[in-house]
Amino acid sequence: MEKKKYMVIFQPSARRGLIEEDTNLIEASRQLGVDIEALCGEKKVCGKCKVRIEEGFFEKFGIQSSRSNVSEWQEEEDKFFTPVQKDEGYRLGCVAKVKGDLLVFVPEEARAGKQVVSKAARDIHIDWNPAVKQYSVEVVPPTFEEPSGDFERICRELERNFGLRDLTIDWHALRKLPRRQREGNWSVTVDVWMDKEIVRVLPAKTEDYYGIAIDVGTTTVAAYLCNMRTMEVLTTTSMMNPQCKYGEDVMARITYHMMNPGGLETMSNDLVEGLNKLISQGCESTHPPKKRKKKKAEDVDASTEPVELPDTTKAEEESEEVDPKKYPCLTTNDIVDLTLVGNTAMHHILLKLDPEFVGLAPFPPVIHRSLDIKARDLGVNINDSAYVHILPNEAGFVGADNVGVLIAEEPYKHDQMQLLIDIGTNGELVLGNNKKLISCSCATGPALEGAQLSYGMRAAPGAIERILIDPETHEVDYKVIGRDAWKKYSKPEEMKTKGICGSGILDVLAELYSSGVIEKSGRFSKNQKSNRYRVNPDTRQPEFVIAWANETSIGKDVVITQKDVRQIQLGKGALYTGCKLMMRRMGLSQVDTIKIAGAFGTHVDKTKALIMGLFPDCDLEMVHAVGNAAGDGARAALLNREKRAEANWVARNVEYIELTVESDFQQQFMEAMQVPHMKDAFPHLEGVVPPEVLHQK
Amino acid sequence: MEKKKYMVIFQPSARRGLIEEDTNLIEASRQLGVDIEALCGEKKVCGKCKVRIEEGFFEKFGIQSSRSNVSEWQEEEDKFFTPVQKDEGYRLGCVAKVKGDLLVFVPEEARAGKQVVSKAARDIHIDWNPAVKQYSVEVVPPTFEEPSGDFERICRELERNFGLRDLTIDWHALRKLPRRQREGNWSVTVDVWMDKEIVRVLPAKTEDYYGIAIDVGTTTVAAYLCNMRTMEVLTTTSMMNPQCKYGEDVMARITYHMMNPGGLETMSNDLVEGLNKLISQGCESTHPPKKRKKKKAEDVDASTEPVELPDTTKAEEESEEVDPKKYPCLTTNDIVDLTLVGNTAMHHILLKLDPEFVGLAPFPPVIHRSLDIKARDLGVNINDSAYVHILPNEAGFVGADNVGVLIAEEPYKHDQMQLLIDIGTNGELVLGNNKKLISCSCATGPALEGAQLSYGMRAAPGAIERILIDPETHEVDYKVIGRDAWKKYSKPEEMKTKGICGSGILDVLAELYSSGVIEKSGRFSKNQKSNRYRVNPDTRQPEFVIAWANETSIGKDVVITQKDVRQIQLGKGALYTGCKLMMRRMGLSQVDTIKIAGAFGTHVDKTKALIMGLFPDCDLEMVHAVGNAAGDGARAALLNREKRAEANWVARNVEYIELTVESDFQQQFMEAMQVPHMKDAFPHLEGVVPPEVLHQK
Repeated sequence: MEKKKYMVIFQPSARRGLIEEDTNLIEASRQLGVDIEALCGEKKVCGKCKVRIEEGFFEKFGIQSSRSNVSEWQEEEDKFFTPVQKDEGYRLGCVAKVKGDLLVFVPEEARAGKQVVSKAARDIHIDWNPAVKQYSVEVVPPTFEEPSGDFERICRELERNFGLRDLTIDWHALRKLPRRQREGNWSVTVDVWMDKEIVRVLPAKTEDYYGIAIDVGTTTVAAYLCNMRTMEVLTTTSMMNPQCKYGEDVMARITYHMMNPGGLETMSNDLVEGLNKLISQGCESTHPPKKRKKKKAEDVDASTEPVELPDTTKAEEESEEVDPKKYPCLTTNDIVDLTLVGNTAMHHILLKLDPEFVGLAPFPPVIHRSLDIKARDLGVNINDSAYVHILPNEAGFVGADNVGVLIAEEPYKHDQMQLLIDIGTNGELVLGNNKKLISCSCATGPALEGAQLSYGMRAAPGAIERILIDPETHEVDYKVIGRDAWKKYSKPEEMKTKGICGSGILDVLAELYSSGVIEKSGRFSKNQKSNRYRVNPDTRQPEFVIAWANETSIGKDVVITQKDVRQIQLGKGALYTGCKLMMRRMGLSQVDTIKIAGAFGTHVDKTKALIMGLFPDCDLEMVHAVGNAAGDGARAALLNREKRAEANWVARNVEYIELTVESDFQQQFMEAMQVPHMKDAFPHLEGVVPPEVLHQK
Repeated sequence: MEKKKYMVIFQPSARRGLIEEDTNLIEASRQLGVDIEALCGEKKVCGKCKVRIEEGFFEKFGIQSSRSNVSEWQEEEDKFFTPVQKDEGYRLGCVAKVKGDLLVFVPEEARAGKQVVSKAARDIHIDWNPAVKQYSVEVVPPTFEEPSGDFERICRELERNFGLRDLTIDWHALRKLPRRQREGNWSVTVDVWMDKEIVRVLPAKTEDYYGIAIDVGTTTVAAYLCNMRTMEVLTTTSMMNPQCKYGEDVMARITYHMMNPGGLETMSNDLVEGLNKLISQGCESTHPPKKRKKKKAEDVDASTEPVELPDTTKAEEESEEVDPKKYPCLTTNDIVDLTLVGNTAMHHILLKLDPEFVGLAPFPPVIHRSLDIKARDLGVNINDSAYVHILPNEAGFVGADNVGVLIAEEPYKHDQMQLLIDIGTNGELVLGNNKKLISCSCATGPALEGAQLSYGMRAAPGAIERILIDPETHEVDYKVIGRDAWKKYSKPEEMKTKGICGSGILDVLAELYSSGVIEKSGRFSKNQKSNRYRVNPDTRQPEFVIAWANETSIGKDVVITQKDVRQIQLGKGALYTGCKLMMRRMGLSQVDTIKIAGAFGTHVDKTKALIMGLFPDCDLEMVHAVGNAAGDGARAALLNREKRAEANWVARNVEYIELTVESDFQQQFMEAMQVPHMKDAFPHLEGVVPPEVLHQK
């Protein structure tokens, strides 16, 4: 009898497929080309293959995922999980077996291949001038002649030594002040926010102090834990946005809020809980590895009831000779500042600001300007007295994340006309220079990042990232991440191909087009030259085989379908239309520089992107990938307070263009879906693409 | 068989005595001279005689009070109490019977005689310039051409109409902003704190808005609910400081904190809970009487989880034609500002600041300067976004309450040398003028207020407030509060005497001295002329009968004992020593004006006070009672922000003198215990007191 099959979807890659009942999740992940670390070879001893079963009805996938849809908890799992994690649905992938439809989240640490296109911090130049600065002073103890207050005593020294005047103090910091001052024998270290407010008093002299910059993406959240003194990024942690279960994109989440009383609070609370985990993880990574499990348990406690860990913990570790430079052993209380960027909807949902009007024409946000909110008000577990600085929004659909890109890239400081493209789940564009800046938002969808495509996957080992298709034979050569040799120079079984990553998708499309497999319209050409083209008997969709099953580690042909091509066309059409309409507004036929932000930009082949007509013609030398520039902006605002002022200035001085109200938007959009573009000239493509292809009608 | 007797103590009057088992609390209160309202004559139908049984061990009284020390709850009581009140120990005085030792608190509303010397607001001059100001603006709705944020839209109008720039907004106010703006059809009323931060957005145009000034005394807490537009005091509410159960005075409470882990939090939380009730009561008093019970229930809900009452409540009442001018029907959410004064220990305990060091030489406070803390951080139930402004402390033992007195009386604005005396549970003195101000604290104890004396009581009907003793016969004539005719012109049974109030105590002592019943040393004279002097057979203490049992409503002689006299001598000695040492510091032999703040000052006979040697010789025309000046100061700071700056200035510019370190303090104190004073000249007493008495050695 044939076994029953269930839909299993792995996040964040969104790889999915029908899996036989009783298959364990490691095996399922292999079948679907998802990488889960399993060092011990499924012997249930390494504990690396931790995954989390998500619960709920996932409309997009049409599945009901539940923790009862996997086999029962096994004793072997106990030692790898805290009771809290168990409650959260964590399992070992080698133990848990499929018993029904499942949405499985693979945490960063369990992903086998390191993500190549990560949200890692770039080395951008930032001048040191943080909002929170640290000062050490020696205080004169009180006497009958001079019995003034503890606070005033510290202020006097801060004014005398550092010229700080009229300081206030956060209540929680004040509560700790008398003890700390006496513990340090009248020597204290004080953290001052914006030269205004004391947010922490520590006993004795301390030099290093810490902050976190967070980029809340619609799909992914990334946190950069920084040493505020050295500006060094200690660690980068990331996770799937926990709101994904309420909707894949911004509009879906706004709708969730409108349809569900209390939905806004739920989404916000889930995100805050996620942020707290991310912050805990960041702190935990500063402990020596052997200590981490213990620490983790404490952090879990700290997240339910924030308490400052007793200093004895640190003393203990020092006695075991842990190098404090290498392992500062931070707790969440050591984080004294936090900056945050995110698009306007993420911003509103996090702050529990009604996002309904952002979703309704003319899409006004509740607020543009940056906010400084006490972390404790938001429920964010960092130091009791610390602020969360949320960068300003430009407009309803161009949020603080785009402002982050702007203050990282600073187009307003240059004469050249720059086009900044930030492609995430939503596309945001800025065009301009030191004279004028305009911005717009375009619904690129997730296809350009390789998500929601038949064989799309994250940029990880086994992902196709480069491809060549012979125009004469339609034969395919390609390269996967994690292997230098192209297929042509490899045995099929050496490839271990799993899918196509975001940047590879464009390569594939560009080659399909250049080689004539697809037409300018995106349709598969009638003039096919290989057996790679076929109509799938199940879906009745035309598809083109990129890798045959024997080259893959998933035992199936990796294909690209007509629907996949359409998805990408819609995305790139939206992007291209945005660029062109913005250029028209500015009276430009050409831009000087194009900067592509987001993971997408990092590995994209610029030529192929141009062939695909992703953005307007430009000297390829002047097209740059700038990584997670939004996160860089958050980090800049963490380490330099001037950047916060700059952010508020730029948010109010970028003119937002609502594209969809342009009278010819629809026509422009239809034309832009062509590969590369029906009407526009692409002089920089001459000599790159065969003339007959480039100029075909 | 004789019935068993138990100690029953009524608060806040501290009247106490042994009461037979099964006596109900109304009867017990009568026997002890405490006034409890009982309109229905103990028929259990009026519900006026509500009292609260306090639980715990009361060290000072040596009793263990418990709710099981009264008879069982009766069905009749159900309709007068909410379940919350029942849990809190509320009972009807006519129902509950004595079954053991009891500490019974009589709430303000159950006290039969209105307190004559109340903490009512005085009519002091205050310029209107509150920290929170209210502005109404019309906002332009967003369009595609101008789709900027809701917040920025309001700010633009506030800047254009009122010149307010660079405003920030409290997060909670921001959360409500989008709906409120649309509810008001783009007309909004905005409350702005210190021209900096928006703390409330209301739909449509509104004129009146409200704040509360609170004086946290060691024993009594008083709240003044003010219309912030008209500056009118709508209502004054007061209660016993709920911390009294942890100790009668400041040092006892500091000790409680040091001896009990978590004691600081407990005391703070109890006070905050008390403040919330006081605020609720204030708001409730703005509702029409017939609606109050219903409102009360809502307020109880609001205190556990602060929610803004739906606007429908107001609409409902308006439809029943309640005059909104007379009954603005406030809820705690309508309170948008709160100022607070209290001595340094009350300040520290409320704010959970470690008070240990305030109690240890050299007594430094944790902080002097004023604090602005979000009410929500403190757990104070007013508007979500409102601040609590806590006035600054002068020194460890001269707190924000004294600063309140100073900004109300403004001695620093005059040439005359003023002596400000604030007598509460602790005495605080300020001496100076526009050139220099010095302050000190003196341990007057509660005796000067009539507390802890054998027949001391609050200034209420039946309390002796004036007395005359014939020097020839030692016969006594007196007057009680609530009756114009003196005893001489009354039948004994008409007097209904109950005890001696604070101001009366001084009168009694002064007359005892002037008539020669006691000597300058405070000892009863050997030369007694009546049978009023006797040695109590039980206590073996000498005592002097002021009112015979048949003149009283308590059926017992009202006496003053040698111990009572000593208590008062200690109090007045501390006060007088403070005054004299301060004058010596300033090089003064005479002051121009004396102002006496606190309930004590309001009804004190100035001449008698001088005879008693309470304060140094002064032209009696220039001795003024200024009522609850500390509360006035809190109100001034509520309604005029300049007063807040003035308070911080004055708190740092009053020089605090620690009296106990003066080398001759002990000698001065011993001398000052004399009546009036052994060595000092009292020219203003010449002709007032018989020369042979005044100049007796």
